[in-house]
Amino acid sequence: MKFNCDRNELFEVISNVSRAVSPKSTLAALEGILLRAQSGRLYLSGYDLDMGMSASIEANVAEEGEIVLTAKLFVDMIRRMAGERVSIESDAKLLTEIKCGLTEFTILGIPSEEFPELPAVTGDEGFSLPQNMLKSMIDQTLFAIATNDTKPVHTGSLFEMDDNELSVVSVDGFRLALRREKLAGAGEASFVVPGKTLSEISKLLDGESDELVEVSHSRKHIIFQVSGYAVVSRLLEGEFLDYKAAIPPAEGTVVTVSKRALIESVERTSLLISDRLKSPLRVKFDGECIKMSCSTAIGKAYDELTCKIEGPPVEMGFNNRYLLDALRASDCDEVRLVINGPLSPMKMLPPDGENFLFLVLPVRLKAE
Amino acid sequence: MKFNCDRNELFEVISNVSRAVSPKSTLAALEGILLRAQSGRLYLSGYDLDMGMSASIEANVAEEGEIVLTAKLFVDMIRRMAGERVSIESDAKLLTEIKCGLTEFTILGIPSEEFPELPAVTGDEGFSLPQNMLKSMIDQTLFAIATNDTKPVHTGSLFEMDDNELSVVSVDGFRLALRREKLAGAGEASFVVPGKTLSEISKLLDGESDELVEVSHSRKHIIFQVSGYAVVSRLLEGEFLDYKAAIPPAEGTVVTVSKRALIESVERTSLLISDRLKSPLRVKFDGECIKMSCSTAIGKAYDELTCKIEGPPVEMGFNNRYLLDALRASDCDEVRLVINGPLSPMKMLPPDGENFLFLVLPVRLKAE
Repeated sequence: MKFNCDRNELFEVISNVSRAVSPKSTLAALEGILLRAQSGRLYLSGYDLDMGMSASIEANVAEEGEIVLTAKLFVDMIRRMAGERVSIESDAKLLTEIKCGLTEFTILGIPSEEFPELPAVTGDEGFSLPQNMLKSMIDQTLFAIATNDTKPVHTGSLFEMDDNELSVVSVDGFRLALRREKLAGAGEASFVVPGKTLSEISKLLDGESDELVEVSHSRKHIIFQVSGYAVVSRLLEGEFLDYKAAIPPAEGTVVTVSKRALIESVERTSLLISDRLKSPLRVKFDGECIKMSCSTAIGKAYDELTCKIEGPPVEMGFNNRYLLDALRASDCDEVRLVINGPLSPMKMLPPDGENFLFLVLPVRLKAE
Repeated sequence: MKFNCDRNELFEVISNVSRAVSPKSTLAALEGILLRAQSGRLYLSGYDLDMGMSASIEANVAEEGEIVLTAKLFVDMIRRMAGERVSIESDAKLLTEIKCGLTEFTILGIPSEEFPELPAVTGDEGFSLPQNMLKSMIDQTLFAIATNDTKPVHTGSLFEMDDNELSVVSVDGFRLALRREKLAGAGEASFVVPGKTLSEISKLLDGESDELVEVSHSRKHIIFQVSGYAVVSRLLEGEFLDYKAAIPPAEGTVVTVSKRALIESVERTSLLISDRLKSPLRVKFDGECIKMSCSTAIGKAYDELTCKIEGPPVEMGFNNRYLLDALRASDCDEVRLVINGPLSPMKMLPPDGENFLFLVLPVRLKAE
């Protein structure tokens, strides 16, 4: 194999593709990036058996071929080199020379046969949506994905297409995050994408761009085509929570409050809570203010902030982390809290509509 | 004790003073900040038995008194609070109320009697020098301080005043850093300040300011007065290396090279070196260029850069970290390397003069 290519283009692609590479594996090829030089292009892939990422760039190919290079070292080399073009040459013994400017590295490559084949996703159902829409749907639901494996299907987000609407849902037993967007002609479908895949795809997506992302899925895999990158991932199997049944229908108390002010108030009152000293936040919605308090072995904290309350007063307990995660994922200046009694999950919504809906389970309070 | 004071002023002072507080100690008072409200001022101190820091701010004192509050929590509280003035009140049972705006914390303080007394440094010798000068002298020598305890006196920097000149020197057995400045009327003195103290003092110093720092020292302690802060520290005892004898006198090969280009070249060639795979850099000074190479079990790296060389060609080995540390501490665009044969320490100097002088010990190379 022998080719040369632009250093900046190569660096950008391998920086991204390396995110699909195992940081540590018993199989050396899984820690590497597959390079394939063919017909005037260089194809680059990373694959950790759960998620794979591929892209290609222009290259002057003198001799076609394939090799796998350790991702971390390869990215560091290309980052550190000075010069416009990189030339890479590997011989039959896998000895690989990487040259750029006056710098030269000679390292041993890994045979391309050891690199696992990426799953093919063909002849399947699909839809497309703008980058910025997909990014906000992922980012606003990622926080509620389960991090433990007690129910593996909940370590991903449910994508549900129905009636020209796309819903993305995450649940972890303590909270729920739901994002909905109109999406014409998407058909009906339902699948669960692993959280890790979504987190990496979000990094590829440009929140300012409305360029389309093509999504295709088969029974076991999904592929996202994002600005030249193909990201393929396995889907999670198992029965996802019936989330519609989990959302309380009736409305008791409705609170409208500044998101920033509420975050700051929770952060302040949480200062006495630590991993060692856990305690719920006691939150009282009453009149025109939220009164928040917390006591642990360290002492007592009290804070209050003004808000708009409709409906009966209510006092309930919350886990400070869960409240903060949901507030931080809200992309609006004010949030609407809909409360259905002290022991029912609290809904967090935008001031108007239900573009996002977060549920936070309350904590039962001891009598004061 | 009862007083109120400006929140921003309090926050700035406790953020700084908390750097002299033990992060973890068996004695609760050592994890705290001592507050003393007296005669219209609030005095704040932190002391970890090695280094102490004190300062004071204006306060409306309604009742004089003293208390110790856990530093980390206290700093976090004052940071998170909203409002201009903080009022603090503690009763005979040490129960302390901290109020600001609508926020209120009640925590238990620690008796001030448990807080150790800071060493007094009085009637001693002293000198003064501009903040920016002291900062650059500390920052440029800190890297060569020994981090292991085989010779405790080398975990600090030697301050030596002689002949209207101040020298600051650090050594760790592998390299030496020496900074010199003219300082009229400083008298003669010699003492060793712990590295930790110097590192904290550097953070207090403003590199842009030529305001004077007052330094006084007794046999066992030193005190730095920096813009309202008094930093007192124990001195290190023991015999410091006779550094003048360690600096090779004669000059063989003199190399002048761009600091940035040399750093980048060392960083590139070091990519194949890791904690597991150590290897010296092989550096050849010859003609008009520096040729750098390195080989480990991963492969080979080669790089070259142009420079100006006077004197015979020479090839020598270096530890990449030591070379980088010295280069990064050089505050000039070009450095002058003075080499006295492949096995003698290499001097690193500014292009003109000897404002700083770093020595880097070479590594013996195996025959290629």
